[in-house]
Amino acid sequence: MQPSGDMGATPALIFDTMMAYQRTAALKAAVELGVFGAVGEGANDAASIAKMCSSSERGMRILCDFLAIHGLLAKTDGKYQHTPVSALFLDPKSPACMGSITQFLGNPMLVNEFQRLTDIVREGHTMLPGEGSVEPDNPMWVQFAESMAPLMATVAGPFAELALQGKSGPMKVLDIAAGHGLFGINVAQRNPEARITALDWRLVLEVAHRNARNAGLEDRYELLPGSAFDVEYGGPYDLVLLTNFLHHFDVPTCTRLLKKVRAAMKPGGTVAILEFVPNEDRVSPPPAAAFSMVMLSSTPAGDAYTFSELQKMLTEAGFKDASHVRIGPTPNSAVLGTAA
Amino acid sequence: MQPSGDMGATPALIFDTMMAYQRTAALKAAVELGVFGAVGEGANDAASIAKMCSSSERGMRILCDFLAIHGLLAKTDGKYQHTPVSALFLDPKSPACMGSITQFLGNPMLVNEFQRLTDIVREGHTMLPGEGSVEPDNPMWVQFAESMAPLMATVAGPFAELALQGKSGPMKVLDIAAGHGLFGINVAQRNPEARITALDWRLVLEVAHRNARNAGLEDRYELLPGSAFDVEYGGPYDLVLLTNFLHHFDVPTCTRLLKKVRAAMKPGGTVAILEFVPNEDRVSPPPAAAFSMVMLSSTPAGDAYTFSELQKMLTEAGFKDASHVRIGPTPNSAVLGTAA
Repeated sequence: MQPSGDMGATPALIFDTMMAYQRTAALKAAVELGVFGAVGEGANDAASIAKMCSSSERGMRILCDFLAIHGLLAKTDGKYQHTPVSALFLDPKSPACMGSITQFLGNPMLVNEFQRLTDIVREGHTMLPGEGSVEPDNPMWVQFAESMAPLMATVAGPFAELALQGKSGPMKVLDIAAGHGLFGINVAQRNPEARITALDWRLVLEVAHRNARNAGLEDRYELLPGSAFDVEYGGPYDLVLLTNFLHHFDVPTCTRLLKKVRAAMKPGGTVAILEFVPNEDRVSPPPAAAFSMVMLSSTPAGDAYTFSELQKMLTEAGFKDASHVRIGPTPNSAVLGTAA
Repeated sequence: MQPSGDMGATPALIFDTMMAYQRTAALKAAVELGVFGAVGEGANDAASIAKMCSSSERGMRILCDFLAIHGLLAKTDGKYQHTPVSALFLDPKSPACMGSITQFLGNPMLVNEFQRLTDIVREGHTMLPGEGSVEPDNPMWVQFAESMAPLMATVAGPFAELALQGKSGPMKVLDIAAGHGLFGINVAQRNPEARITALDWRLVLEVAHRNARNAGLEDRYELLPGSAFDVEYGGPYDLVLLTNFLHHFDVPTCTRLLKKVRAAMKPGGTVAILEFVPNEDRVSPPPAAAFSMVMLSSTPAGDAYTFSELQKMLTEAGFKDASHVRIGPTPNSAVLGTAA
């Protein structure tokens, strides 16, 4: 509003920022207590919501008011009700409910690490033991696979379309860091002749395997347990999915991995990367750019890479025609390359 | 934008809410590392800010980008600089700098308590031992007095004006829960015949006493150490300041305290209450209404009271002509009453 100086500047942003952590805790608590389910079933005052959630009325009144202040419930004439967002994404009756993501995103290991952020910035890397979130067999990836599927479901369809590029017919697909498996599953659902090989830690693969069975894809779904850096990929593949993976590592490590991927592919095949891709200014779009903070706090050397950085890695690893598509209103991007 | 249903609803608010805690940690870390001072002295890229702050370049680049994403720094053509808000309120060279508030508002005892918010809502009160934040001699109030003065400085002048109501001449003033002492000090600065009696825990009073000495008010400043519920107030007083205090307690306790205040006042004297006062809907204005969450998490039975609730307490305690003034752009209100 003003070019510079103090006219009109207030400390409101500073106060709001220092209180922001309470929003995270409130949403996590509301999901754990079943508040959004109770509101969906018609409870509309603190007493009745508290009763349905086996909670105190004082606590529930303050929590629901807090949620309303921050747009996660509505309050009209003293009665609580859903907002469009809470009805669609937080009511357990909604097919698009993603309340479970609060478990992974509110994971105490990740959240607590931010209490050491001063030291983390000073040192330049996570203070978690070993390799942090990318330590082999870190159980958080089972939680990721279990709880983040509803959020990824909004991305997996568009990503699969982009990865397939309209191609049909017999196709071998490697799904690296498969997690919940939704990306490979969406490819298989769109191409009935695609065969998926899902790679992840053994315990994580149990989640992907269950999801593939539930989608009726068991006969086209193989499991390849282990580290993406160590296991033999097999192949050659027509399509490799590399989703939510590269950001955990530094540039040389990403390039090395992409070379290994390239070596397991047919010429002309596609590598389809799902990433948080900031613009070259590294501060927009906000949710993609802010993701680098998660990598600072939880990994030794990961980052949210710009498209030009990803393009350079791809070129060095033997890919051509790199392209970048932002996926919808989500913070995710697809970056595609063709095996040269 | 839409009346109801899912058209246009995205999970962005949910994602943003689950990441909000990172904003709190980032601002606290930036203050601790001296980032805003470095930017104020002209460092404008990650390498030079990192050097001035004895930090890693990777950590500093990601932190500064994160601050820029959230409006606490600007980034133009790859260079970081102050926003009007960060220049005025976060640069240590600014007389209005309030970086120190991140120490109290980011106090690990208060922040960590939110990891038990589900249990707190269920039980309806703090899970902290004893009386929580209002446990006698809780050392957090020394930290409050030391670190929150710069934020309260924006409120103390207008509040003192309202409390004095233009009155001059000899005046005995009781400053209950004096803390940093700024409220009583501002009254004394506006009325050279006002004598202040400051009441708080003994260690807290050392901070108020120092501030009073620095303001040249030593000969009009007396100390009354102890609990507002237990000590003899003396008096009778013309003016009693009751700032940031009532919200810690339930209605009967507040009413009991106000009766004790009334008994120590001259008829026609003023009680001047500083509070976070939500509207009757309890969800607006946002910063005042949201304060009830702090009371839920840190006290057995405190709350952010509406004006009608405060008015009722005042009437029952022997006050008349209650009035309410928002102190503007701050989240604070003055509520005044006259000893009947």
